[in-house]
Amino acid sequence: MNDFDRARHGAQLIARAQALGRHSDSPAHYTRTFLTPAHQAAAKQLAEWMLEAGMEVRRDPVGNVIGRYEASGPGARTLLIGSHFDSVRNGGKYDGVLGILVGIACAAELNARGERLPVAIEVVGFSDEEGARFQTSFLASKSLVGRREADVLERRDADGVSFADAMRAAGLDPERLGEASVDLASLAGYVEVHIEQGPVLLDAGAPLGVVTTIAGGARHRVTVRGEAGHAGTVPMPRRRDALAAACEMVLALEKRCSAGGSLVGTVGILQVRDGTGNVIPGEVEFTCDIRAGEDDVRLAAERDVFAAFEAIAARRGVSLSRVELTRNVRAVPCSPRLREGLAASVARVLGSPAKELASGAGHDAMVLADVTEVGMLFVRCGAGGVSHNPAETVTAEDAALATQALLDFLRSFSSGSVRR
Amino acid sequence: MNDFDRARHGAQLIARAQALGRHSDSPAHYTRTFLTPAHQAAAKQLAEWMLEAGMEVRRDPVGNVIGRYEASGPGARTLLIGSHFDSVRNGGKYDGVLGILVGIACAAELNARGERLPVAIEVVGFSDEEGARFQTSFLASKSLVGRREADVLERRDADGVSFADAMRAAGLDPERLGEASVDLASLAGYVEVHIEQGPVLLDAGAPLGVVTTIAGGARHRVTVRGEAGHAGTVPMPRRRDALAAACEMVLALEKRCSAGGSLVGTVGILQVRDGTGNVIPGEVEFTCDIRAGEDDVRLAAERDVFAAFEAIAARRGVSLSRVELTRNVRAVPCSPRLREGLAASVARVLGSPAKELASGAGHDAMVLADVTEVGMLFVRCGAGGVSHNPAETVTAEDAALATQALLDFLRSFSSGSVRR
Repeated sequence: MNDFDRARHGAQLIARAQALGRHSDSPAHYTRTFLTPAHQAAAKQLAEWMLEAGMEVRRDPVGNVIGRYEASGPGARTLLIGSHFDSVRNGGKYDGVLGILVGIACAAELNARGERLPVAIEVVGFSDEEGARFQTSFLASKSLVGRREADVLERRDADGVSFADAMRAAGLDPERLGEASVDLASLAGYVEVHIEQGPVLLDAGAPLGVVTTIAGGARHRVTVRGEAGHAGTVPMPRRRDALAAACEMVLALEKRCSAGGSLVGTVGILQVRDGTGNVIPGEVEFTCDIRAGEDDVRLAAERDVFAAFEAIAARRGVSLSRVELTRNVRAVPCSPRLREGLAASVARVLGSPAKELASGAGHDAMVLADVTEVGMLFVRCGAGGVSHNPAETVTAEDAALATQALLDFLRSFSSGSVRR
Repeated sequence: MNDFDRARHGAQLIARAQALGRHSDSPAHYTRTFLTPAHQAAAKQLAEWMLEAGMEVRRDPVGNVIGRYEASGPGARTLLIGSHFDSVRNGGKYDGVLGILVGIACAAELNARGERLPVAIEVVGFSDEEGARFQTSFLASKSLVGRREADVLERRDADGVSFADAMRAAGLDPERLGEASVDLASLAGYVEVHIEQGPVLLDAGAPLGVVTTIAGGARHRVTVRGEAGHAGTVPMPRRRDALAAACEMVLALEKRCSAGGSLVGTVGILQVRDGTGNVIPGEVEFTCDIRAGEDDVRLAAERDVFAAFEAIAARRGVSLSRVELTRNVRAVPCSPRLREGLAASVARVLGSPAKELASGAGHDAMVLADVTEVGMLFVRCGAGGVSHNPAETVTAEDAALATQALLDFLRSFSSGSVRR
């Protein structure tokens, strides 16, 4: 471990993330969506780096790029190390990509030393996690484990291209989608390295963090209907202003979700229907996104928030309706063994106890948790913790520390100790 | 007065408003904007009814239709009775139109009896008050008194037609716009009959009301800038949510403007810039419309509201900027003599004291107030007081009562008693 060259690894990781970032659907900003030419070029580049790192490379039915670094002996189980190489529109170049590059760097380091482990390693570049092109949700990791999203083949992108046609144009067979591309019985676990996408590690002064749980959540669309009217002629006590009611609801949600812990609540969209400067708003729609690391905490908050909304609506004489936009996703706790293993490795590399934190964002690890134990390692996010944004950054030093910690974890990892 | 036929006048007024409402820019709803074919057809129809009522009719440089009913003797001053025949998009058929029709009905009644008054009467159908086509503001009444809106000739409508071309196509000379079309020195006053556009008379059970003052107001656009972030990963205390801040401001405005009297405050537009369900809003814009019958009341409210906004912004760590959208319009008090004269006539017709109220909406009377004394008579607005809306209604009985009251006022009116 003493001769792990942080400077070289750090520089290479940043250079590779930047190089991969040039494969973009748009010349104006970084956007890479499922099976576009830029996406296929990025897949090809990842495959080349995997080959250089001494791995066998394959492309699976959903376009995932998988590099396998064989174990020291036959019959070994397989530890997956994965993250995604698609992006949101106008996103950041480390989101997803960093985790794949760290996995490849670990394999390359082992390969350079001629070192094999008791467990086989498969580094997976997931082709579609953000789902920006076809509004999919964890499509690639679901496919990896043999799940298929309903009616996905009929969906069309913004240009009218069908999902099935996009697959065929990229040399993939839509009929094979949902054929599990890994042997589920052989899995020893799944580990994902990811930038934090928030400010917690930055605020704590910690380069790395170990994820305790991936938050669950649900999103609703709420519609408030009051009565439109002339802004000059309807006395204030006579009004049933849909916007004023909605504003009171936004603040009620903010207050209830500020109770502490990993609970968060956000109104990201709010629209006055047919809004005009001199008309009292008659109808307002807004979204309501509530998440927490613990499902009971989240569901209690959701109940309280909607009860507060009802009370506000009743008091103001407006009507309220609500539609579930995103299905209630349960929180996924990380495996205690993987979590402890990662924490021990982080502590060895940093020389101080590992910071632990919940993940507020969703990750492919949530899908893998259905079939194997999962663990996640977070890397400090610079620029105030912004992500899904061109300003997203990771330092070379932090990227190298993540590689060193993951390598330490892989060397300490015994597949026998991981329960299935 | 005993033989004023309310039933006949009421039925005719409603029938005429409905007939005029068929001259619409759109087959789907009632919209009539400056100098469109429907607008020119409506002008032609008004001119025919004015001729039938025994008036001399002229069309002035801005397309106003003016019917003159001569006084009993030479050298008399002129009392103007006006309102507008353009509409907002998808508006109501009585807004503006009712006032012109009531004026014509009074002239017709006088003419039928061969009755002349000491004052000449000019019924003015203003061609553009709402300003929906070229975003003008009281264009027609300003032109009537010799004021010209800056740079109006270069404006274009939604189809790219210039204002000047629209005028030429309708047989008007853009160069003559702003030539006063009435002799200002001869004016005895201006009276406008208008539907209330609010619920005050409806709630009070009063068919008619006399306006005390036309509210002044100003509209601002406020921009709140916080920090965008991932809805799942930024802890609540770490957020600078532009929407939550804006919502607190909306409620502060609502609270301060509920202090009573004629003061009202409205946020009619609120937009989250680039709003997405899973992103904490980074920027929000909203409009802020504050009006009151008394300028000192309104300006004090405005100061308090913006001070509250600043305090909210400072506490939440967001920035605030504000732009004046509509110039500060001062409140216009109605002339005490016209107000008293109208109130006396209303009381005679109804047999009970006249209800007095402020006008929250702006009217052409505000422009005329610069050159002569003004008075306004409001007619009860049905359907909960809605206006600028297809549901807007007036009953035949109320329209007839307004005609009877205005006729009583005209007969009692002595131009000599009106100070210039």
